[in-house]
Amino acid sequence: MLNTALANIPWEDRPAGTSDVVWRYSRNPIIQRNATPSSNSIFNSAVVPFQGRFAGVFRCDNKKREMNIHRGFSDDGLAWHIDNEPIEWLCDDPELRAFEHRYDPRVVWLGDRYYVTWCNGYHGPAIGIGYTQDFEKFTFLENALLPYNRNGVLVPRKINGMFCMLSRPSDNGHTRYGDIFLSRSPDLIHWGEHRFVMGTKKGWQETKIGAGPVPIETPEGWLLFFHGVLTSCNGFVYSFGAALLDLEQPWKVIYRGGPCLLSPQTTYECVGDVPNVVFPCAALYDQPTGRIAIYYGGADTVTALAFAMMDEILDFLRESSEL
Amino acid sequence: MLNTALANIPWEDRPAGTSDVVWRYSRNPIIQRNATPSSNSIFNSAVVPFQGRFAGVFRCDNKKREMNIHRGFSDDGLAWHIDNEPIEWLCDDPELRAFEHRYDPRVVWLGDRYYVTWCNGYHGPAIGIGYTQDFEKFTFLENALLPYNRNGVLVPRKINGMFCMLSRPSDNGHTRYGDIFLSRSPDLIHWGEHRFVMGTKKGWQETKIGAGPVPIETPEGWLLFFHGVLTSCNGFVYSFGAALLDLEQPWKVIYRGGPCLLSPQTTYECVGDVPNVVFPCAALYDQPTGRIAIYYGGADTVTALAFAMMDEILDFLRESSEL
Amino acid sequence: MLNTALANIPWEDRPAGTSDVVWRYSRNPIIQRNATPSSNSIFNSAVVPFQGRFAGVFRCDNKKREMNIHRGFSDDGLAWHIDNEPIEWLCDDPELRAFEHRYDPRVVWLGDRYYVTWCNGYHGPAIGIGYTQDFEKFTFLENALLPYNRNGVLVPRKINGMFCMLSRPSDNGHTRYGDIFLSRSPDLIHWGEHRFVMGTKKGWQETKIGAGPVPIETPEGWLLFFHGVLTSCNGFVYSFGAALLDLEQPWKVIYRGGPCLLSPQTTYECVGDVPNVVFPCAALYDQPTGRIAIYYGGADTVTALAFAMMDEILDFLRESSEL
Amino acid sequence: MLNTALANIPWEDRPAGTSDVVWRYSRNPIIQRNATPSSNSIFNSAVVPFQGRFAGVFRCDNKKREMNIHRGFSDDGLAWHIDNEPIEWLCDDPELRAFEHRYDPRVVWLGDRYYVTWCNGYHGPAIGIGYTQDFEKFTFLENALLPYNRNGVLVPRKINGMFCMLSRPSDNGHTRYGDIFLSRSPDLIHWGEHRFVMGTKKGWQETKIGAGPVPIETPEGWLLFFHGVLTSCNGFVYSFGAALLDLEQPWKVIYRGGPCLLSPQTTYECVGDVPNVVFPCAALYDQPTGRIAIYYGGADTVTALAFAMMDEILDFLRESSEL
Amino acid sequence: MLNTALANIPWEDRPAGTSDVVWRYSRNPIIQRNATPSSNSIFNSAVVPFQGRFAGVFRCDNKKREMNIHRGFSDDGLAWHIDNEPIEWLCDDPELRAFEHRYDPRVVWLGDRYYVTWCNGYHGPAIGIGYTQDFEKFTFLENALLPYNRNGVLVPRKINGMFCMLSRPSDNGHTRYGDIFLSRSPDLIHWGEHRFVMGTKKGWQETKIGAGPVPIETPEGWLLFFHGVLTSCNGFVYSFGAALLDLEQPWKVIYRGGPCLLSPQTTYECVGDVPNVVFPCAALYDQPTGRIAIYYGGADTVTALAFAMMDEILDFLRESSEL
Amino acid sequence: MLNTALANIPWEDRPAGTSDVVWRYSRNPIIQRNATPSSNSIFNSAVVPFQGRFAGVFRCDNKKREMNIHRGFSDDGLAWHIDNEPIEWLCDDPELRAFEHRYDPRVVWLGDRYYVTWCNGYHGPAIGIGYTQDFEKFTFLENALLPYNRNGVLVPRKINGMFCMLSRPSDNGHTRYGDIFLSRSPDLIHWGEHRFVMGTKKGWQETKIGAGPVPIETPEGWLLFFHGVLTSCNGFVYSFGAALLDLEQPWKVIYRGGPCLLSPQTTYECVGDVPNVVFPCAALYDQPTGRIAIYYGGADTVTALAFAMMDEILDFLRESSEL
Repeated sequence: MLNTALANIPWEDRPAGTSDVVWRYSRNPIIQRNATPSSNSIFNSAVVPFQGRFAGVFRCDNKKREMNIHRGFSDDGLAWHIDNEPIEWLCDDPELRAFEHRYDPRVVWLGDRYYVTWCNGYHGPAIGIGYTQDFEKFTFLENALLPYNRNGVLVPRKINGMFCMLSRPSDNGHTRYGDIFLSRSPDLIHWGEHRFVMGTKKGWQETKIGAGPVPIETPEGWLLFFHGVLTSCNGFVYSFGAALLDLEQPWKVIYRGGPCLLSPQTTYECVGDVPNVVFPCAALYDQPTGRIAIYYGGADTVTALAFAMMDEILDFLRESSEL
Repeated sequence: MLNTALANIPWEDRPAGTSDVVWRYSRNPIIQRNATPSSNSIFNSAVVPFQGRFAGVFRCDNKKREMNIHRGFSDDGLAWHIDNEPIEWLCDDPELRAFEHRYDPRVVWLGDRYYVTWCNGYHGPAIGIGYTQDFEKFTFLENALLPYNRNGVLVPRKINGMFCMLSRPSDNGHTRYGDIFLSRSPDLIHWGEHRFVMGTKKGWQETKIGAGPVPIETPEGWLLFFHGVLTSCNGFVYSFGAALLDLEQPWKVIYRGGPCLLSPQTTYECVGDVPNVVFPCAALYDQPTGRIAIYYGGADTVTALAFAMMDEILDFLRESSEL
Repeated sequence: MLNTALANIPWEDRPAGTSDVVWRYSRNPIIQRNATPSSNSIFNSAVVPFQGRFAGVFRCDNKKREMNIHRGFSDDGLAWHIDNEPIEWLCDDPELRAFEHRYDPRVVWLGDRYYVTWCNGYHGPAIGIGYTQDFEKFTFLENALLPYNRNGVLVPRKINGMFCMLSRPSDNGHTRYGDIFLSRSPDLIHWGEHRFVMGTKKGWQETKIGAGPVPIETPEGWLLFFHGVLTSCNGFVYSFGAALLDLEQPWKVIYRGGPCLLSPQTTYECVGDVPNVVFPCAALYDQPTGRIAIYYGGADTVTALAFAMMDEILDFLRESSEL
Repeated sequence: MLNTALANIPWEDRPAGTSDVVWRYSRNPIIQRNATPSSNSIFNSAVVPFQGRFAGVFRCDNKKREMNIHRGFSDDGLAWHIDNEPIEWLCDDPELRAFEHRYDPRVVWLGDRYYVTWCNGYHGPAIGIGYTQDFEKFTFLENALLPYNRNGVLVPRKINGMFCMLSRPSDNGHTRYGDIFLSRSPDLIHWGEHRFVMGTKKGWQETKIGAGPVPIETPEGWLLFFHGVLTSCNGFVYSFGAALLDLEQPWKVIYRGGPCLLSPQTTYECVGDVPNVVFPCAALYDQPTGRIAIYYGGADTVTALAFAMMDEILDFLRESSEL
Repeated sequence: MLNTALANIPWEDRPAGTSDVVWRYSRNPIIQRNATPSSNSIFNSAVVPFQGRFAGVFRCDNKKREMNIHRGFSDDGLAWHIDNEPIEWLCDDPELRAFEHRYDPRVVWLGDRYYVTWCNGYHGPAIGIGYTQDFEKFTFLENALLPYNRNGVLVPRKINGMFCMLSRPSDNGHTRYGDIFLSRSPDLIHWGEHRFVMGTKKGWQETKIGAGPVPIETPEGWLLFFHGVLTSCNGFVYSFGAALLDLEQPWKVIYRGGPCLLSPQTTYECVGDVPNVVFPCAALYDQPTGRIAIYYGGADTVTALAFAMMDEILDFLRESSEL
Repeated sequence: MLNTALANIPWEDRPAGTSDVVWRYSRNPIIQRNATPSSNSIFNSAVVPFQGRFAGVFRCDNKKREMNIHRGFSDDGLAWHIDNEPIEWLCDDPELRAFEHRYDPRVVWLGDRYYVTWCNGYHGPAIGIGYTQDFEKFTFLENALLPYNRNGVLVPRKINGMFCMLSRPSDNGHTRYGDIFLSRSPDLIHWGEHRFVMGTKKGWQETKIGAGPVPIETPEGWLLFFHGVLTSCNGFVYSFGAALLDLEQPWKVIYRGGPCLLSPQTTYECVGDVPNVVFPCAALYDQPTGRIAIYYGGADTVTALAFAMMDEILDFLRESSEL
């Protein structure tokens, strides 16, 4: 079992008088848009425990509105120091090394190292994979799947000897559709055995869905937070919900929560470069207490934090599930 | 003459130093988005006097973003108790009873009962009609008109023995056009004699228009508040204005105010699930004082209130009318 | 039972060596695009037996590309004389009388007269209804349903005392969706009790469908020919197929043929003002022999004829039906 | 050399602790949306020194959402009195005089008078040119270029005896493309010798760009502030940056700053009739101190002010330039 | 008066039994798509009398589908020899000389030389102007108007000392709108005094219109053939009609024929690279006999010829005119 | 070296008087649309030598317009017998076995068997791979790549031990963009190392491109015929051209022919279910004579044949190449 204790998980109790399954951190946003000199916005970012502290890979759009990913460290998961310069990726192939854009990273400890996946510009949006063991040296592996794809998220351990990745095939624009698929690989390079996981449903997830943080292993299944998009007459609205995937056949959905768990309602979620977006890319979990901390982007502009309890999430899934 | 006194109409005088014909309630929004446990947003809702108090039918989108209509009561028209569960409609035909979506209700006292009309999902948006006599038991009648239609609003008395309904034919998406028509019926089931009432005009109403609250009878004509939509480069902007329709031939427009009366300007109108929306669905009127209270949705998220005086509205129409 | 003998039905046997359920007349098109001095094209037209001969209402687009409907007569249903001037409609209401456009007529003998329905421009496409008793004097009744609607087709007798009309709600452009509904009326003026009949299906009918000729009564149900539209990467392709509707509840589909019966394949169907269109608007039936003659438009340019046998059509429906 | 001292230029020092090249006025917005009784919004407006004070031409959308341009005066460039009625233009040709819409003015002192250019409705958006000598009498000259065009900006002196105008050819809607061109004229009536100046680039200026204020002459070249538009999944985002154009061949770009200088981040830039817009139309310059004051519209709703130092802008251009 | 005799105008009498005002040459198309080794298609081309024979500038799309214009000669206006290589244009400015695309030429004798106008790629479609005196040496002048523009056609003599050009402002794609404007110039370089000439009308010209051949001077006005485009559900349909413009104020329309004169009906007009196109670019006129020969492109693939008589065209305009 | 003699390759010499590098078979189309009782159209099909005769996998759209692939045999490659029923694929996974659609097959002999690739409906268009050894039993392997993808074509031998596949990532509609990529696999199941091969270019291939037949090995490189699509104002036009890819690094383009080799010009290419399509899916090659026979679909309706000589194709590539 992968999950272990994370005693220093960032935490704040549910506000009195509310019963929401997921609640916001009262000091949101934890990272402001201009937190580094070069940044226009910092959001949709991934955080992992690292050497008793926390490390992260952050989406920083600079003032040219170039999208890239940067390294950061934190003692408490709340106050962050983020590099002003983007990560440099070691890569022998000059064509693959060329920068087009990088965004929406996820980070996962898998085997003996941290893997990073992100939306990597290669003649369109593709799923880049790289790794680091020390958050100093970062090595680019390959684009896992052909363009046009986004929201590539690795399952945090091999299953039957195979790596597993969730992704959301897309087009090369502001895609108006999108389902989640799972692909398998013996080597993180070659991917196949693609299986449909789940598609859109009416309401908050009517337009497209995509995997959010790296799934959390529970005895009952993989807990997946995922975003869903609704198209209003003023554009896309991004919310997020949860599902539980089968441990051994993670393309099989056990539960899928009917309502969303968080939708854009605060100013930092509703006002910014892209209004009405909450977009989770990382979740921390402390098994002994059941605490979950979810990092999410607000309005494609800032980084925010929300909290939940594992048992309550599982109850929510059981009670509200609609497959 | 239908209109009678409504001494307990919600009211607040025009703020000092302003001359707007319609002004906002200072404690808006009166209903917050999460006013019931299940709601994501409560807006575009209809209110009527009922047994010395007030009753209403409220559009509540739940946390799945399903759209449905709920009952509510209030002593003063300001503080509301809204049912957490949607209205259940009595209906023998299982196909008609099936729930697709219900939204944007209007309520009208007509003859011996309250009729409710709303946008009813039946293979697309259609105009559902039902009635209640006690706000306890609600009976579904029929879809008044074929899909695709929205903003069906009944005239509050028969004219020459016929029921009259305003509506706005649409398409099955976020429609980019829309004119108001009037249809007649002997029985509230079969509708015909469709007449064009009015179409779009440049400016705030350039994209589409739709009837708002149930028209208010005046000696000069039916006072109709209606919404108009402008398409900016960031989507639709919903404002509302007014017109006066002929008492006996309500498809004939006597006056049509040039400017809008209220456009989205406050935070609760500009920020929310759909930015930049004011959308009126109900108006109360106290004939002795001339006071009008208009209930409207803000940003497709909350319910707000605005006020006006009948004589000033009529003056506005006379002076600014453009047919 | 409405159907009677029609000994002089136009006819040509199935070509040797083929087994198609529906086959084309070998001398198609029977009406050329310039058959009247004013016409640019003549297509999508309706034919009925009349006084031992045949009468028809023809869609003639003139050289300005205005769309209107004209009267015509024929001795044999093959050679037609069509008026150069459009039908003049008696109508007291100047607003209803105003010409916007008229197209795609159907004609049906119902009770004591011939009713004509067509797509009537009234602030967008609506369903106009008129009648004639002698093909000399034509009276306009009303627009049966609100815009935006097309392909309004009357069932040729009342059912439980009510008139029944099939129609296809649309938008105000080249609509990309469309299902068939049935509405009922006590008086041909007021319409209600709208019921969904059938929607699109994959393949030749994936984009939209619409009723074609007036349904033919058979002991097993109403035989409805209907067109279906597929969207290729070069636009719409119109084919037609068939379904059988319940005699007493004609919104219930008994059979719906899987394949289409005729798709655009000949030059006069594939080349013209709108390539790749076959569009049926009328069918004659001779009960004693089982012969059916179907009039259809080719490429929105000319009028053509196809033939079938009733028993073969019913066999086709039984064998290929997919509901 | 045109530029002279402007000792009374509005000014506020850069806030402590920041290093932004352009910074906002702390009391923004300087003009509220309802600053005149008729106005719905006042933005995208042009200011010039005039008789020791300041005069301006202001875009005021009225409550019908008609777009027109109004005159205003100010002692300090901060507090403005704006006429409630739009400017009346002297013009002999009734067709040219007819009002369709006027918006986004620029004003420039050129030779012996102030020229005003704006987006002038003439069967679509065109570039209107007029002049005034006293801000009392305004004379319309001609539409400088054919529709569809916007953002016509005059270079503030003749070059080789020719007037020079920057413009951005468009379509007749919410255009999704747009490059800057320069045209020349002997008489301000007839324009030719059109040269491409610069086009879109990835990031904040990926969709379209357009000249902002009248260019400022410096020994190194014309300093041009220009807006750039990015298309997010919720619509257009307008930022602005800078470029330096060759003094004698102003269609040649010497420097073009990579990042934008100001993007929508404050509430009055992100919330309003069109969310996420900063749109500069005028800049004042005091050569002795190097101070620059930039007037810009916020959210197509209000008028705001930002400041910069000439030497810092030129440094920024040199250091970040990407051609 | 410019028009003179052209005794050797190509000609064929109207076919017996028809009364069309414009009729096709029986041996159409006169130029096949592969008439030169490099050509994929030859169409939308301009012809003038030259030294007792005929010369022309031809749109030849090559097998890469690059669009360019080529020179050709003919003895009789029917059999043509067209250069396999495109015209080389003398031009000092390397930016203007660069080839992007050239298409849809018109040629006119004006003063002392032949001017050629065409749609010239310069950061989008613009109106290129060049001239030749001998059809050997061709000199490029300038782009007359900013992009995005097409169908630039010179009036064949100066009016009040000014050159006059008709054009059709467009966007940078397959434009869905388009009106005809007239601009004036003292020098063929700088253009201004833009006036609206005419816009779209319902039917065959509902989507866009554009000037066709160089106008023919008659005592009553300039005879302008122009194309009009209708949007069917399978794309654009190009027909052409005629109008008469005021001799001294050619932006004033005297007559505008209601119906089109020729619409795509033959195989070589309905089948080809772009189905359903007739597009005229040149007309010859023999004043003594009144004969007119119109060169037009068929289906954007071949060149065809049609004939008319001047008096009949003028009668047609008088009788059918709709302004 | 894979290529061997194919003495019975279908063949017809180039017509006298022409110099086209690719020429059509004079008896085209070789397979009519109704060649099987169930077919609406037969096109975009793949042919291979098989046991001294020829076998093929044919795209047959049935009369429901369902797209599926059928087996066929021929003695001479010209006259074909095609099964009326589609191929049944052996597959254990019921989800993968489910039929959504199958179209545009390619067949290649690779190692010890024939592999078939096609566009396989799996929650959108994906690349299905299966194999057969005897054209009797067909086994489904997997979807090679995630949706949305089309035109998956295997290189006919392993390179450095890896299978190589060309494909064209797409969206889920009538995609308006598309480049060719190459992916590698150790097992035909898991694919990675994705490399960009080539993208669109102006002219006949401006909208999208896709690999056609299985590449033919030559000493100089892999000869790839590929289709290119141009968007006219009446939809897509499909032509085909050729390129030469590096033998060992087939994502490197050695030559890319500038013009297309065949564009839709005949009736069976310009008229049919999708006008203006030539779409090659298979090529036979007889090395000793240099003869090439290319099978291609015409108008998405029929199957046609064209011929070429290898040395002429290579000369064409060398002379016209534009990278």
